Amino acid sequence: MKNNIQKLCFIGAGNLATHLSVALYNAGFSINQVYSKTKKSAEMLAREINADYTIKASDITKSADIYIVALKDSAVKDVLSGFDFQNKLIVHTSGSLPLSALKPFSENYGVLYPLQTFSKTREIDFTEIPVFIEANYPENESILKLIAEKISKKVSVLNSEKRKSLHIAAVFACNFVNHFYSLAAGYLDAHDIPFDVLYPLIEETARKAQEIPPKEAQTGPAVRFDETIINDHLQGLEQFPELKALYNSISKSIFEYHQKE
Amino acid sequence: MKNNIQKLCFIGAGNLATHLSVALYNAGFSINQVYSKTKKSAEMLAREINADYTIKASDITKSADIYIVALKDSAVKDVLSGFDFQNKLIVHTSGSLPLSALKPFSENYGVLYPLQTFSKTREIDFTEIPVFIEANYPENESILKLIAEKISKKVSVLNSEKRKSLHIAAVFACNFVNHFYSLAAGYLDAHDIPFDVLYPLIEETARKAQEIPPKEAQTGPAVRFDETIINDHLQGLEQFPELKALYNSISKSIFEYHQKE
Repeated sequence: MKNNIQKLCFIGAGNLATHLSVALYNAGFSINQVYSKTKKSAEMLAREINADYTIKASDITKSADIYIVALKDSAVKDVLSGFDFQNKLIVHTSGSLPLSALKPFSENYGVLYPLQTFSKTREIDFTEIPVFIEANYPENESILKLIAEKISKKVSVLNSEKRKSLHIAAVFACNFVNHFYSLAAGYLDAHDIPFDVLYPLIEETARKAQEIPPKEAQTGPAVRFDETIINDHLQGLEQFPELKALYNSISKSIFEYHQKE
Repeated sequence: MKNNIQKLCFIGAGNLATHLSVALYNAGFSINQVYSKTKKSAEMLAREINADYTIKASDITKSADIYIVALKDSAVKDVLSGFDFQNKLIVHTSGSLPLSALKPFSENYGVLYPLQTFSKTREIDFTEIPVFIEANYPENESILKLIAEKISKKVSVLNSEKRKSLHIAAVFACNFVNHFYSLAAGYLDAHDIPFDVLYPLIEETARKAQEIPPKEAQTGPAVRFDETIINDHLQGLEQFPELKALYNSISKSIFEYHQKE
């Protein structure tokens, strides 16, 4: 890697910013500065990666080579506007934001999207995380590829449209899945049953999906259209109207999805 | 274990029956006979566990000590009616069927419910599967406990009501979860993106739920109420009306669930 692409500035200090900047720091990159409007987050992350920090967008450093933006999509425009990036390379990390969202801020821009769910308190092996990159010029793409390959073994180029499709799929396979874990945990708690009895089931369900196409692996009353059990479960959810509504609509979705073909 | 409880008859030859009978067979139990109305299933399983088989309910053997019923709940009554079990121990394996469902067929009955998702083609470590037992007499409970502990390290007694709650939670944490994997796979396929890019995400989501309460681990646009992304995703789902409807209702559910407390 060229030495002149080593000074980074992180704009954002949330879960993704934390994991990504730590991975880059551990891979030998210098991170000059962290910006976050939340002082605590900025300070904590800056300490971890040996960087300065600021909570004022106007104080973002001018001396970085690459600016990595890891903000809520809707905040990107506000935070970046009014700062002169002097055509340095700006990179966002969002699944949904198109590459073009950075066009107003520099002549050099790109995307580095790590497909994973990040929680600050969890250690994660970044080398196994698929990272999808995109850039406005081949030169910028090469720079991003070099950077991404220092932290992940699974780097590919993907355009904005496909990245968005991937993000949507990830919402289903991760965010929605986790919500069902939460609902199950809450329901068990209301019945004085510890959530950990479900661990082997959660584990096996996730593992199986990686070996058998999940449509083929579908089990349970809905796919068998076992009305006796379905009705019995709906009755057991009488005191939990939100769960009951979801049980109904998802069972219907499962049944219909498996009627096709 | 006493020698006189070693002769088993399996009524049913589906996924659960297959995994459970194979585990029992490997633990040293003799299985006299397998019954299934589907000849192919009966024959295949019987061969695997060195048993006879029948496809006629009236030909179920009279010489077994314990009858293990692993049928669709709605089929149990039909198959068992008209057979004289001579008050031998009958055990069902269903999460939802109450213990009392077996009362009409014998004076000795119980439940042995392994909490796992079973596919015939997947090997599974039965010793890690939580098994929940219940019986009409303490003697029968002891017999079931002895049997269950031969195949699993995680045996507990649980009453019918709690077992049903557990089964409902399992539908959320396994069947619904797997459906979302399927939907994600189908959506990616329609966009020419291989499903395996989601494996590390699926794996981490499942692992995280076993270490952090899943409600705390929730990530994604819905919990942040990132309307920009949500609307963008809904637009990306325009050609997939069923996915769009689910995206909408589950995002709403996530947001509301996290507003509480």
